[in-house]
This record gives sequence, structure tokens and C-alpha cells, in this order.
Amino acid sequence: MTAKSDWPDLAGKLVEGGHVLPVRIYFEDTDFSGVVYHAAFLRFMERGRSDMVRLMGVNHEALAKGDYGEPLAFAVRRIEVDFFRPARIDDLIEIHTKPVHAGGARLILEQQVKLGEAVLVAAKVTIVMINLEGKARRMPATLRSTLGIPDE
Amino acid sequence: MTAKSDWPDLAGKLVEGGHVLPVRIYFEDTDFSGVVYHAAFLRFMERGRSDMVRLMGVNHEALAKGDYGEPLAFAVRRIEVDFFRPARIDDLIEIHTKPVHAGGARLILEQQVKLGEAVLVAAKVTIVMINLEGKARRMPATLRSTLGIPDE
Amino acid sequence: MTAKSDWPDLAGKLVEGGHVLPVRIYFEDTDFSGVVYHAAFLRFMERGRSDMVRLMGVNHEALAKGDYGEPLAFAVRRIEVDFFRPARIDDLIEIHTKPVHAGGARLILEQQVKLGEAVLVAAKVTIVMINLEGKARRMPATLRSTLGIPDE
Amino acid sequence: MTAKSDWPDLAGKLVEGGHVLPVRIYFEDTDFSGVVYHAAFLRFMERGRSDMVRLMGVNHEALAKGDYGEPLAFAVRRIEVDFFRPARIDDLIEIHTKPVHAGGARLILEQQVKLGEAVLVAAKVTIVMINLEGKARRMPATLRSTLGIPDE
Repeated sequence: MTAKSDWPDLAGKLVEGGHVLPVRIYFEDTDFSGVVYHAAFLRFMERGRSDMVRLMGVNHEALAKGDYGEPLAFAVRRIEVDFFRPARIDDLIEIHTKPVHAGGARLILEQQVKLGEAVLVAAKVTIVMINLEGKARRMPATLRSTLGIPDE
Repeated sequence: MTAKSDWPDLAGKLVEGGHVLPVRIYFEDTDFSGVVYHAAFLRFMERGRSDMVRLMGVNHEALAKGDYGEPLAFAVRRIEVDFFRPARIDDLIEIHTKPVHAGGARLILEQQVKLGEAVLVAAKVTIVMINLEGKARRMPATLRSTLGIPDE
Repeated sequence: MTAKSDWPDLAGKLVEGGHVLPVRIYFEDTDFSGVVYHAAFLRFMERGRSDMVRLMGVNHEALAKGDYGEPLAFAVRRIEVDFFRPARIDDLIEIHTKPVHAGGARLILEQQVKLGEAVLVAAKVTIVMINLEGKARRMPATLRSTLGIPDE
Repeated sequence: MTAKSDWPDLAGKLVEGGHVLPVRIYFEDTDFSGVVYHAAFLRFMERGRSDMVRLMGVNHEALAKGDYGEPLAFAVRRIEVDFFRPARIDDLIEIHTKPVHAGGARLILEQQVKLGEAVLVAAKVTIVMINLEGKARRMPATLRSTLGIPDE
């Protein structure tokens, strides 16, 4: 009943060079100024990254259980984010995610939040692969291959 | 590009007697105990109610602007909620929403959060129609008709 | 520098029959309707319960590590909540928490959110003690004693 | 009963060159990885900025109502944020906020999230003053004076 095929678009779509995820703006995302609360966009961008790697075949639980060697996780290391224009209740926005660099333990992505053709928010996000002690770890070759990251 | 037709399932589906909305569990919804934070289910249930009335043709902005007479809004008045089982990261759950009573200013809905056939959370939610001063207001006839609520 | 004594009131105060926690309303707690988002009150009430048991000497990490026998945690089982009046940005509200029943695995609390003398929200919350498999577990005698719960 | 004097530390403290706000980590702030969700730090930093201007005598409602001329609001325009170390449930962290530049419509602040002497997160935040149409507006002289911003 809740099989993926019932809701084919829920994780968005892989597109040339990246991924697009639709997100609806609900009450919970707005604040009393009438528009979307700024930190909500970081939640939306994390959804985009999660669904991109989901569609690429990477499972967070499998990562955490050590299926790629030792237990591993992705952690956000740095974000630079520009807020250009507001989003509002009921808006249907899209989160565009594009990996732009991968090397060792580090993955850099560019993300845009768009409403139609307008870019509302743009960010550069640095992700690192860490183990359970929080130490940076080179991404395993099998994972790099799954993610389509060329070997160095 | 972000037209509704590109993402047909995003607002869920009207079904016999109510509405079903798919929701993905992301990092933001969980807490350090490893499962979904209890109050997150109230956010999910509000998404279900919002998308149900959206698909029925009711627009929150139009309500707030007075398209049905004076400016109006739905407010949550009471919730009784049982948390039976946890949901986890990456789960694809469904929010089932069923109006069970409508009278005057008040709308009562039953909602269930399901994972496959299992009911994780069940709630009875009382909504009231209010004006800008927060006073309860009888739902306008045109709104009742839009929502399929029989006249008393 | 961040010793508890620098910020003596941060966890609120134990009072006759319960606990009071002050909470400030920030942008993040409101929605575009101009008032506090309904589910935010559940977060505030969880803060009140956490700080009450904190001041009583119960540590969540110690519980989870098995200091009271097997690893244990508190989980919310049921909430009945009435939303009487809204709270607004910059308001300084108080969360009043009063345990009213304890038996076996179960703890029932009454909670009120107050602005001055006005009760904005009132709830009856049922908490259960569970182990790592999510099974209900009788609260250990040492924990009952710490919490001042009479033996049955 | 909820007078500011009952909870003197709730808005933190103005210190030489800025402001310090204590924040407790609750369940709501963590995710299933066991540590604080990255976007939660942006909420904490917004609390720090709000309480700093609160203690300086600036009221968000007064701003929005036009007490400084036309209706005005602060909006986040850009954030650069580094996440160095995690915070965990029950931690008592401090948000340090320091204005470093003010000019025209723009205010730049440096913020640090500290646990004891350790810096967990550091950010550079650009705020702009906007009117109701979202247009950038030079900060009024009376507001600049209240905030201790030298005239250019």
C-alpha cells in the first residue's frame, strides 16, 4: 500500500547532472512575518540531498550499519547560503541539487531553491563522510562508484 | 516548471470518505532516540488536512482575504492523539484523514498515520473556523458546499 | 563558563506539586497566521517534562545506558490537548507540569501553558517507560524513589 | 507572575562587544544520528540575535508597526556557517553574538556556538532591514542609535 510505486514522484527525479525535489510550503514552514522561516530552507535542501542519494541507491541505514566497511555517515561541514526572495504558504517550490566536487572524505554540492524560474535561495554545501567517532573518512570505492564519483 | 501537473501526487489523493497523503521521514523528523519525534506527527497530520482541503478547492489565502465573507481561518482547538508505534528514518508513511462531523463553526476529523497496514498513530482533531479576532464563526454555506458538508 | 550556576533559571524551578519552566516565543515558533504554531506547544511541554526530571536528578543518558537496570527511556503514549488562546512573538510564557498518577510503567502528567494568569493550552500527557525494543517496562524502584513516586 | 524579573537570565546577557545566550539541548533539537540536527543551530543563532536586540531595547512588533517610520523588519540575507563539532542532548551551550559591521540597510554579525571553551559552530550572518514590500531600507537614525551603530 505504501510501496514506492504508489507515489512515484515522492523522492523527486534524477536529472542531467543532479536531482530535483518538489516541496510544498505548509503552515509549519512559515513564521509570523508571513513568509518561510529562513532555516526551513536548510531542511528542504537536506531533503533534496537525502532523496538524491536515495535514488542513486545509497541507504543511510546501510551506511550506518557498516555495509561499506566501518559504520559511516554524511555530516554537514559548511554551508554558504544566500536568501534572495521569500517563499509563501501553499507555494510549490523545487530543490535543485548538483554535486560539483568530490574528493577524499569531502563532497561539495550546489543547491538552489526555485519557484518557477525564480531562484529564491542558493547554497554551496560541504558534506564530509565521518565514522562513529566523528573522524573524517575517505569515501569507500564502492560508495564512490554508486554515487558516480570518478576515482582520483 | 513547477506546475502541479509535474508532480501530480504531491498533495496526495482524495479517496472514498477522505484523503491520503504520503510522507517521507527525513533526518529533521527524528530525534536522538532513533525514531520520529512525537510532535512531528502533528506536523504530518496538519499537512494531510491542508492538502485535503487544497484538493477540495479551498485556498487558505482566499479564506484569509475574505473571499468567503469576512477574513477566516481554520484553527486547531483540540487534539487527542495515541502514539502506538514508532516511525523511522527513510520510512514512507501515509496520513489518512477522514472528516467525521461538521456543525456550525466546528469540524471534527479522524486521522491515522500508517506504515503499510500498521497504524502508528491515531488522532481525533477538532478544528474551528475563526475570524481575525479569534472568534468562532459559522462556516459559510459556500465553504460548507465546497467541503461537501451537508447543511444542518 | 557554561556551568549550571551561570544560568540558574534555565531549567525552571521545582514548585509545590510540580515544575515551572519559562519559555520565550521566537520567530521559529510562529507561523504565517501571526501566532504560535499549534505543534510548537508540544515541544514546549516536552521541555517542561525534561527539565522537571532533570531537576529531580534523572539523567536521560544514564537511563539509556542502563544505570537503572536495562537501558530505558520515557516515551509519549497519549496526549489530550486543548488550545484555548494563542501565544505571540516575544511572549514570555510558562509551562506548568504536575505529575498526577504513576503506576507500573505509566506516568500521567497535567500540563498548562500560561501567559500571566491566562491558561493558553492545557494537556493531559501519558508517558510510558520502555526498553530498547519498545516494550513497556515497570519503572525501577530507584527511579520511582528519585521521582518521589510512592511504591504501590 | 511571568514578569521579566522572575526569570532574569532568560534573554541572556549583554557583554562587552555583544551578547551571550544560554540554550539547552532538548529532544526536539537532535536527530537519529544522536547529535543536534545541523539546521537547529540556525534557530539557536536567531534566538541569540533576537534577544540581543531585545536587551538593547528594540521591539520586533514596534518595528513592524512603523514606530521607526514605515513598517520595517530584519531579514536574513546571507549566512556562512561552519559546523566543527556536534552538540548532544542535555548539553548547555552558549550563543555568542557580535555585531562587526553596520552600514545603510545592512548589519553583519559574527556568531559562535560554544560548549564550555570549545567552539562547536561559527557563522557570519548578514541581516538587512526591509519594508513590507521586501525592499532594502536604510536603518533609521533612531534605530541605529538604539543599537549603538555609529552614524556614517
